[in-house]
This record gives sequence, C-alpha cells and structure tokens, in this order.
Amino acid sequence: MLKSYQITPTYTPLKKDLEHKINFKTKPIGALGKLENLAIQIGLIQNTLSPKISYPTLVVFAGDHGIVAEGVSPYPQEVTWQMVMNFVSGGAAINVFAKQNGWDILVVDAGVNYTFPTSLPIKNLKINFGTKNFLNEPAMSDEEVDKAVKTGADLVNQIHQKGSNCIAFGEMGIGNTSAAAIIMSKITNIPINECAGKGTGLDDEGLKNKIEILSKATAYHHTTTPLAILKTYGGFEIAMICGAMLKAAELKMIIVVDGFIVTSALLVVHALHPQVINYCVFAHQSDENGHRKMLNYLNADPLLNLGMRLGEGTGAALALPLIQASVNFLNEMASFESAGVSESR
Amino acid sequence: MLKSYQITPTYTPLKKDLEHKINFKTKPIGALGKLENLAIQIGLIQNTLSPKISYPTLVVFAGDHGIVAEGVSPYPQEVTWQMVMNFVSGGAAINVFAKQNGWDILVVDAGVNYTFPTSLPIKNLKINFGTKNFLNEPAMSDEEVDKAVKTGADLVNQIHQKGSNCIAFGEMGIGNTSAAAIIMSKITNIPINECAGKGTGLDDEGLKNKIEILSKATAYHHTTTPLAILKTYGGFEIAMICGAMLKAAELKMIIVVDGFIVTSALLVVHALHPQVINYCVFAHQSDENGHRKMLNYLNADPLLNLGMRLGEGTGAALALPLIQASVNFLNEMASFESAGVSESR
Repeated sequence: MLKSYQITPTYTPLKKDLEHKINFKTKPIGALGKLENLAIQIGLIQNTLSPKISYPTLVVFAGDHGIVAEGVSPYPQEVTWQMVMNFVSGGAAINVFAKQNGWDILVVDAGVNYTFPTSLPIKNLKINFGTKNFLNEPAMSDEEVDKAVKTGADLVNQIHQKGSNCIAFGEMGIGNTSAAAIIMSKITNIPINECAGKGTGLDDEGLKNKIEILSKATAYHHTTTPLAILKTYGGFEIAMICGAMLKAAELKMIIVVDGFIVTSALLVVHALHPQVINYCVFAHQSDENGHRKMLNYLNADPLLNLGMRLGEGTGAALALPLIQASVNFLNEMASFESAGVSESR
Repeated sequence: MLKSYQITPTYTPLKKDLEHKINFKTKPIGALGKLENLAIQIGLIQNTLSPKISYPTLVVFAGDHGIVAEGVSPYPQEVTWQMVMNFVSGGAAINVFAKQNGWDILVVDAGVNYTFPTSLPIKNLKINFGTKNFLNEPAMSDEEVDKAVKTGADLVNQIHQKGSNCIAFGEMGIGNTSAAAIIMSKITNIPINECAGKGTGLDDEGLKNKIEILSKATAYHHTTTPLAILKTYGGFEIAMICGAMLKAAELKMIIVVDGFIVTSALLVVHALHPQVINYCVFAHQSDENGHRKMLNYLNADPLLNLGMRLGEGTGAALALPLIQASVNFLNEMASFESAGVSESR
C-alpha cells in the first residue's frame, strides 16, 4: 500500500551543467555554501537549469491521539481543536510566518476529537475522532491507516494540479511527539529513551513518565513493517503526511521537511522508498530531543537551527526565503563573462 | 575620535514586559527559540512592546588595499571596481538577495583604485585610490582614517533621517580579508595564523604566503589603540563601517552584522564601546577561517550558518526574513486568552 508509489531518482546527468552554471557566477567557487547544493538539488528535481518555485503550499494536518489518556502531555487534548481554531483565525505562529513568507496555508482535520463548524475554512478529511490508546491496542485499524495515507496522497495531487511544485507539512496534535518517538525508535532501532523528549514542555518527572509509558507500549506490540508501525503507533495526521509525501515525491515536487512529527512520517516513507530523500529539503533542526538523531539517520543537513520546538511547520515556513534565494541566485546572478569581471588566477 | 560617540545601554526594565507578552502567545514557553531572544532584543532597542522594522538599508562599501601587491589574493585588484560595476548592474549575489528580501541597497566608493563614471548610482565618498601597503607603512594617514570614520557616521545619519531603523553593511575589496585578519589578531590577541583564512579561494600554498606576509606586517608596526590598529592595517571600507556602526548604535538602530570584514570593524568599535553589542544582530557564521573565533570573542550567536564565505553583506540580506519574523510573531500572534486556548497544566 505504501509501496505502490513510483518514486524515481532525480536526473543526475544535469548535475555537471548545474555546477558549471553556478561556478561561472560572479563569486568565488563554493562561496554560497549550502545554497549552491540546494540550487543543484532543485535543478535536478525539476530537471532544468532554471528552476522556479510555484505556489508553495503548507498543509497543517491535525489529529488527536488516544495515548494522551496516559498523561504524556502537559496540555489537555482540547488544545488540538482550540489550536485548529487559532489556525483558521490567523493567530498562530504558523499563520504569521506563512503569511510573511508567501506560503498558501491549508488546515486539515485529519482526525481531531471535535466536530468543527462546517462554515470554517477547515478541510474535513477526518478519519475518526482521534486514534486509540496504543498502550492497549493499535492506534488505527487497517482500514483507517489505508484511508489516511490515500487521503493525504489525493490531497497533494489536488494541490499539484492547481500548479504547486513545492509543499511543506505542519501538524497539530496533543500527544503526537509520543507517537513520533515510538515510530522513530521502531524504524531506526534507537532506544526509546533517546527518542522521546519534552514535547510541548514536560518537566523531568513528566518526561520520565512519558518514557515509561512508551517503553511499555513498544513492548506490547509486534511490529515488523513500516506500515504496521504506522498503524500501531501513528496518528491520523502522521499517516496523511506519509501519503502526502509519497505522492509529492511521485509528482517530483520539492518537499520541505520540518519538525519531529513530520520527520517521523518521512522515516516511514524512507524505509520503503529511500529515493524520497532526493525530493526533501530539510528546513530546521528542532530543539526536541531526538530530532537531531532523526536527521543524522537520514544524513540530512537542515538549513536552519534556531532552537525552535513548536511544530506546525514553522521551520518550513521560515526556510522558504532561503530556498527561494537558492533558485534566485541560479537564475539572476551575472556570470564573470557577462559582468566583465576578471577570474581567479 | 572613535570614543566621541554616545552609545547607551538598551532599556532593561522593559525586558520583563516583553517576556510576559511572549510567554502568553499561543505556543509553549520558549518554543520559538532564538526568535524569542531576538524579539526581546529588538523591543529593548526600540523601547517598545510593538517594535517594527522600517526601511532596512544595506550599504556596500568598496575599497582597495595596498597589501595586494604582496600577492595575498588569487584575484587581481581590478576585481574590486569590476564587482562595484556588477553591484550597480544588479548582477551580484547581494543584489539578488537584497531585492528578494526587501533591502534598500546603496553602493559606496570608499576608496577604490578606479574612477567611476559619475552617471552611475555609486555614492562617491572616496578617501583615496586604495590604501598604502601596510607591509611598508601605515595603510592610512591620521587624516584619512578620521575622515573615513566620520564619512561613515554621516552617511548613516542621512539614512536614519530618511526613516530607516535597521542597517547592514556589506563590503568589497580585494585583499580585505588580510586587513581584517590583522585587525582581529591585534584586538583579540589570537595568533595571526588562526585569524587568516583562504579568503576568496587561496590554495594551501597561497594561504601559507598570506600568513607569512601578515606575520611580517604585525611585527613592523607598534599599535596599541584600536584607532591605531584601524589606521595601520584597515581599509577605507572598514574604517567607514566603524563610523557607520558607531552612529547607528548612537541612533539606536538595529545593526545586522555579517561577514569576516564587517565583524573586524565591529571588533574595533567594541574595544572602545562594548555597549554596541546591544544593537547588533548577528546574521551568519562565515566559512572563512577566523570568523567563528571572532563571534566567540564577541559572545555572538548568529542566526544562520549556511557555509557561505562571499562577503558583500549576503548573510545579512538573507537574515532579514528571520529578523522580520521575530517582530511579526511578537506583534501578530494571538495570546492564549484571546484565542481561547487552554494553557499548560
């Protein structure tokens, strides 16, 4: 089901031409650092020497988690729906950063434990009113995980058809750092105590409790495939992000990856489709314990490291100007020859 | 002369109010990381809970250096004026990034060894046609260094009068990493071989030669005061940046500091006015050897680390969206109360 997507490698023969174009810009060789690598990556994704970013779209998926019954978060579950309301009122950090940097934003109810008024601009793709408590039973049924993945993929297909070639994902879901930490531990084989972190702000005692709960949960379930891990521990928002990433990579879109939760979805996708990494631009290294290790596991080098740990896609929203800068210098800078500048001896 | 500027500490009693405003935004405490510290700093600089960025202006100062006669750069001296022409044609990296991110850009001839046509939009503040070779004699006369500092200060005063409250500096000058490395070594007492780097792209042999030349030059001159160091080794662009920073801090502007050369100017200013640091936002850690040590010496934590080493103010240009984001979240995000979101237990 996760395997059925066709993710192809990016077109590598063009790499030499992109490097040549970059090396004749009016700057010393390599002087734009990571932006040069990024320009090459985006050129390869779009198979052109003159790439562009069209209608960058940030989708915020919200879902609730049964595991919150175990006290793994300092915030009550209703904060999920309350924050969704905040997203549609424009008052959250992601609204401020998306608006500033030119992202279209779309808020999706993937499975919040609340019924939103239909008059609000919330895309209703609800799978259920929150997942089950994975301490006792799998978070999702087989049908639910399949539906969530397919729903995410279909949504990205629609966004692509509207002309977008650059997508990012945010999430909201009280308890979802617990789900992400177990997914991480199961996929990477890193012990759960090194994957779990303070989330929205647990104290040391709270973190100890969270690790105990998650350790119990990892022992209860026998999970061998990435799909089984996703179904057993995931959230509806995480499963939708998996489907969304699969379709985005299939459609050769730039995927801006940000945050502990979204990167846990990428771990699931990457386990089956390592080629997905060709399409991923890593936005920000979160301050959440475990995210650095996720990035190391993926051999990923994020653009930003601002010590943030908010989720919502905030790091992705802030990274867009750097992504745009890499495309702009490739397209707009003069060459030594065109500018009449002498080259290095 | 450098001492005559009045740089006052930022208003600290407001800090508590800024922290309170930030902590009641709809996000976990501290979850926006460095952007929270930046919002507090800018609020303190402007002495308000609702700061704003007005007419951000990036001034690129260009100057030539007599030391290039010793072969310290792989590029010929004429690249300085050729790149100035590139700046006014809009083909350089700084043009692309400044345009993208909303900086007004101003190109200044601080002392290029070339006569530019007066029809071009280059501000002619030329002190001389390049500095002297500091291997043999001081780079500048007493009159020249005084004039350069005052000229930089006067220019910032004009920019401030036009309504700007945020300023950044770029530079262009073949040979100026040599000047900056000696200034750094003299001010910080870090040995010259740890201050000098490959600049625009010296090979190992070239770097060895550069370090030998600079070691000889440090031995020849007895320099005890920051002004004497600036006069003996500085460039006209570096001296103008010193004056520009002094005036900007006096006028309580945000100073976006970027690059090895510009940070060397800050070292001179900081040696006499440690309070200047209150007004400085550090944009990017350069890949040029020595810049990280400069930043450590200043206890500075830059916003970006993209492995760039181009100068021109490119890091500053790229950092503006993050600076704007810190101001925007402070002004635009909802509070828990206004958004009806439950707080942490």
